[in-house]
Amino acid sequence: MKLNSILSFLSPKDVRFFPLLNETATVLDQAALLLTELFSSNDKERRKELCKLIKEEEVKGDKVTGRIFKALNETFITPFDREDISALADQMDDSIDAINRSAQKVLLYFPEILPDSTLQLAEIIKKATVEIQLAVAELTNLKKTDQQVKNHAKEIKRLEEAADVVYEKGITTLFKSDLSPIELIKLKEIIQELEKSANKINNVGKVLKTIIVKYA
Amino acid sequence: MKLNSILSFLSPKDVRFFPLLNETATVLDQAALLLTELFSSNDKERRKELCKLIKEEEVKGDKVTGRIFKALNETFITPFDREDISALADQMDDSIDAINRSAQKVLLYFPEILPDSTLQLAEIIKKATVEIQLAVAELTNLKKTDQQVKNHAKEIKRLEEAADVVYEKGITTLFKSDLSPIELIKLKEIIQELEKSANKINNVGKVLKTIIVKYA
Amino acid sequence: MKLNSILSFLSPKDVRFFPLLNETATVLDQAALLLTELFSSNDKERRKELCKLIKEEEVKGDKVTGRIFKALNETFITPFDREDISALADQMDDSIDAINRSAQKVLLYFPEILPDSTLQLAEIIKKATVEIQLAVAELTNLKKTDQQVKNHAKEIKRLEEAADVVYEKGITTLFKSDLSPIELIKLKEIIQELEKSANKINNVGKVLKTIIVKYA
Repeated sequence: MKLNSILSFLSPKDVRFFPLLNETATVLDQAALLLTELFSSNDKERRKELCKLIKEEEVKGDKVTGRIFKALNETFITPFDREDISALADQMDDSIDAINRSAQKVLLYFPEILPDSTLQLAEIIKKATVEIQLAVAELTNLKKTDQQVKNHAKEIKRLEEAADVVYEKGITTLFKSDLSPIELIKLKEIIQELEKSANKINNVGKVLKTIIVKYA
Repeated sequence: MKLNSILSFLSPKDVRFFPLLNETATVLDQAALLLTELFSSNDKERRKELCKLIKEEEVKGDKVTGRIFKALNETFITPFDREDISALADQMDDSIDAINRSAQKVLLYFPEILPDSTLQLAEIIKKATVEIQLAVAELTNLKKTDQQVKNHAKEIKRLEEAADVVYEKGITTLFKSDLSPIELIKLKEIIQELEKSANKINNVGKVLKTIIVKYA
Repeated sequence: MKLNSILSFLSPKDVRFFPLLNETATVLDQAALLLTELFSSNDKERRKELCKLIKEEEVKGDKVTGRIFKALNETFITPFDREDISALADQMDDSIDAINRSAQKVLLYFPEILPDSTLQLAEIIKKATVEIQLAVAELTNLKKTDQQVKNHAKEIKRLEEAADVVYEKGITTLFKSDLSPIELIKLKEIIQELEKSANKINNVGKVLKTIIVKYA
């Protein structure tokens, strides 16, 4: 057993987890911000740059998640059950990965046009990551903030349903268009990745709900 | 600790889980029934209605799964290890989600024709959900019913292999047809979603096998 | 409690897990070897045979994974936390499944040509499974071999990044080619399955890293 494990054993609650979870939430929100810029930009060079920046956030996300898992292994007392901390970190990391995959598909496929639904989905994703960031910041004091966290979780679910509507409209429009099959394949996959990102972010919301049920 | 937790602590085995698991299995079977109707119907309005009804089953599935997880958090004594109950609930819920995704793709893509393989897959899925429903109902008395549950698990695996054969034939036929690329893309995805549904249902069978190994 | 459980309870560390994990790693490596042969062969009959052989490895993988989970249920003392053994077995099994899916897509789609990127990806996958096999063999004596296992994990990550580069180049080349949409769809999916296989193998590397952090 290492020294810091012994020390954390002696302290009533290890608070290292909250800064790390907040850091992950910030990376997630930053990735979402870059994603909205990617789908609003028409400049090919700027798009490349934005994809590179999103990839950098993904690497950051991996690192901070790694630190959370390392801390979980070294710590005896955790503020929540370790499975809840690890689920929260995991789902946020999965969301960052999904955003990165959405961006990399744009770089990879270089579609001629990006339909409106892509920017609309990115904007919904950005709104949801703001809710996550606020909710994660409020977890330190859950007895007092449970109603706020509950409201953020509710809003995340609402946004996921809004994303579903945009996704369905986007795909329907695509198949009704006279795009070439190749362009259609490209855009369909980009829209599907964005919808998966919205789904993953909703999974973070589900973990937040579980945490409220257990500890509030 | 809430009162019902204390009560369940005093009772030798909490039996609330079996009705909830049976309820999930019933939702799954109902979703599969609607799916077979969807792929036999030629009426566009009826298809829309069926997709809506399947979506409603998916929402029901989410709710009952949520109640199972809530109950797991509040209960000290569970009839099986909590990881087995949660795996069973999770995999059934994933199966319902996959059936719903298959249906929503029909609504979204509106393909001109639905090849025979789609109805054949839906019918295999329906047969497998009947096996799941029977097996889950027999879990209450596993010492006596282990041979039956084992047989259901075996039949679920056999059905998954049958689904694989239909899937492969369906895809091969599709690529040999003279469909337009756009129609091919649509039908390929629908057949793939159906095959994924059959796979998810087979995962329920795998959990059932684990439960037999551990408790029978 | 069965007799072998009692015996293993009396022995300080149950060593049955290492041979089983080594067996899984061998199946994974064998599947990868057959995969490289599949993508180098031009003979249609030989390709069919290779797909059948890969499927057989997949069945073997399922069986040995099943035995690992059975052993975990019957054993009180395990060399690592049971969650680590089960994660390692699970991720290796998922990798075998992904290799099998890549192979079955070749059989199913029968593409006219197989681009270079497919063989390149298969070769990277093969190199990574060698690293896994070596690392798993060294787990029995982790206090002494931790540096080697760490190096294997590092090499697995490097190979995954190499696979990413080949994947991106392969997809870009595909979309720039004048292939028919149907052929493009087929090849895109095969390349994507290969990239997923490389990803799954990298997940094995991540589990190895966790094990080093916890036990070395």
